[in-house]
Amino acid sequence: MNEPTKLLRGDERIDQLYSQDVKIIQSPTCFAFSLDAVLLADFVRPNHRHLLKTVDLCAGNGAVGLFLHNKLGGTFTEVEIQERLADMAARSIQLNQLDDRYRVLNMDIADVFNQVPKDSVDVVLCNPPYFPVTEKSQRNPNRYLAIARHEIKTNFMMVAKQMSGLLKMNGHGYLVHRPDRLTEIMTTLQEHRLVPKRLRFIYPKPGREANMMLIEVIKDGKPGGMKVVPPIIVNGDDGEYLPAVRKLLYGKE
Amino acid sequence: MNEPTKLLRGDERIDQLYSQDVKIIQSPTCFAFSLDAVLLADFVRPNHRHLLKTVDLCAGNGAVGLFLHNKLGGTFTEVEIQERLADMAARSIQLNQLDDRYRVLNMDIADVFNQVPKDSVDVVLCNPPYFPVTEKSQRNPNRYLAIARHEIKTNFMMVAKQMSGLLKMNGHGYLVHRPDRLTEIMTTLQEHRLVPKRLRFIYPKPGREANMMLIEVIKDGKPGGMKVVPPIIVNGDDGEYLPAVRKLLYGKE
Repeated sequence: MNEPTKLLRGDERIDQLYSQDVKIIQSPTCFAFSLDAVLLADFVRPNHRHLLKTVDLCAGNGAVGLFLHNKLGGTFTEVEIQERLADMAARSIQLNQLDDRYRVLNMDIADVFNQVPKDSVDVVLCNPPYFPVTEKSQRNPNRYLAIARHEIKTNFMMVAKQMSGLLKMNGHGYLVHRPDRLTEIMTTLQEHRLVPKRLRFIYPKPGREANMMLIEVIKDGKPGGMKVVPPIIVNGDDGEYLPAVRKLLYGKE
Repeated sequence: MNEPTKLLRGDERIDQLYSQDVKIIQSPTCFAFSLDAVLLADFVRPNHRHLLKTVDLCAGNGAVGLFLHNKLGGTFTEVEIQERLADMAARSIQLNQLDDRYRVLNMDIADVFNQVPKDSVDVVLCNPPYFPVTEKSQRNPNRYLAIARHEIKTNFMMVAKQMSGLLKMNGHGYLVHRPDRLTEIMTTLQEHRLVPKRLRFIYPKPGREANMMLIEVIKDGKPGGMKVVPPIIVNGDDGEYLPAVRKLLYGKE
């Protein structure tokens, strides 16, 4: 393995997701994965096919794809528009010695078909920017985080379009998003031949509204038959992670 | 109060929902309310306006409307196509001495505008038949239950159309349905100017998929802003009702 600290720049650090035995380069000022990425990776169905092709759109520092190195076989393409984050992702791939299976494309997802053929991908992952840009929206003064969280460089329509374009017929897409946009998201997915088949809602605490949802879609899937799988409640009333979440993070309850 | 047993016919019995202090005439062979009706009534927001107008579509034996006699002010119209069930609903209204506020219309919801003006209603409730009719679908050999559970006499498109037609602008609709039809239901509601604003999923046991969902819509509501409120898990691993459900049924945990 490379000398880990030689791979770090500026204020970066290495965080480990113990449950998946993987290390991720993080930066408090640029980008650090959050529970959303861990929950999205957990939601993905295992598939160990050797020839599997997976693309992660809006990959950030590559955390979601890297979390899946054991659960999905084959190769991963991580697409990230921000050069600094794409560079972090590339160095995390080196750090985990996964260069033979992972590559990073530093580009706008709008241009992804320049590098990845249409209808060629088995699995598409996406943890997109959650918040629409409105004149009122208070954008994050940190430009890295603003682009990661707000629909400044892309939007959900583009995410759905590119996910659909990449996937083979019956390919699977996995998304994490905010429940307040549920209706729009369901409509947009269907308009792009992505049939929602499985949903999980994430609640921050007992008695609170859901603040996250995980969605599995199948391209050209048979309509209907939605499964709403058991919810995850993140924290107890005491603010501590509940056992199911501790297990996802630390590999043990 | 009328002598209760004089109001009963055939195999009917009187069940009491203790939490709402209301009695419902039930029949094991024709129709008996289930937890779905109790959860739907619980999901409705209180509104004590004296001039409130509420319509219950697919009212069955009138349970949902009667459960709300304390929570909603004004008058209730219960629309039920099956004569025997409409008659049970009328007698339950007598039994609870609510004749001054409740009426029953024994008619197809398709004809409701013959009796209730368009755009005149504040609240519409509906616990519709859940199951599409297909050639394959095994219909219940009991005709009463078959019509109540399968889309034989109506369907979700008609439910959405009539709910929308009845409601005033910004009026509220409340529905219970099955999560496997979530995508179709969201699409159909939006096509009928009914904007989904609040969702609750009901899980039969810990670790199981949701088998029921409650939906609040606002006619011509502002799009977006969906709230997915805390889930209800009905039974513990031991098969006994959990405390929150016991409270809904019996008025105490």
